[in-house]
Amino acid sequence: MNAEPKLVIDPRSNVPVYRQVVDTLRSMLVDGVLRPGDTLPTVRDLGLELGVHFNTIAEAYRLLAAEGWLDLRRRRGAVVTKRTAPTEKPESEARFSRSLRQLIAQVRSEGLSVHTITLELERLTRELSA
Amino acid sequence: MNAEPKLVIDPRSNVPVYRQVVDTLRSMLVDGVLRPGDTLPTVRDLGLELGVHFNTIAEAYRLLAAEGWLDLRRRRGAVVTKRTAPTEKPESEARFSRSLRQLIAQVRSEGLSVHTITLELERLTRELSA
Repeated sequence: MNAEPKLVIDPRSNVPVYRQVVDTLRSMLVDGVLRPGDTLPTVRDLGLELGVHFNTIAEAYRLLAAEGWLDLRRRRGAVVTKRTAPTEKPESEARFSRSLRQLIAQVRSEGLSVHTITLELERLTRELSA
Repeated sequence: MNAEPKLVIDPRSNVPVYRQVVDTLRSMLVDGVLRPGDTLPTVRDLGLELGVHFNTIAEAYRLLAAEGWLDLRRRRGAVVTKRTAPTEKPESEARFSRSLRQLIAQVRSEGLSVHTITLELERLTRELSA
């Protein structure tokens, strides 16, 4: 891997660690921080680095392979594939809308102000449109 | 409960059912669809309605009670409390930003276009500012 991954695991989160690994790596794949041909660390190395069992990393890699992002090879490890994006499914938008609203409800419940949330949404919209 | 809850459980989701129940109810609480004094269905009734074990509903109610949203009473069931929002924590914004970006990466990975995502973010921003 060329770019050093900024994998942050939050042990206090109620999101399982393998999902945290999947979500973070997927962000880097979508954003192009990880590019086709890049090799990920071995499950053992990444497990040691993050202080989690290597099976947790293996499970994360398997999920990303199932999504078409990684090619898992016995000797060479996990290699980023040249993936073609799937076509937009009709139900994806409704599911995204629901997940987004649930995330907003969660952070409002935690005390985040509507002002802060709105600023973050606007920042992200600008980034995506850039 | 005055308003009939629109609790949608997605059995294909990899989000555990109790979390889906928590997320949906929390949305209704934050949005004021459920108001202080409202009574939720018993865990048995809601479990039957959704086709899940009543323990799953009980777990969801316990989590929302721990967040200060519900008052659990042996006989009366779960009652929505008059909750004061916690103050905004410094780390909340960073965590929200990360979760939001990971959600976007996930739906882009599933094929949702940047255009569709942007429209949804703008719609939500308008709703929050209204």
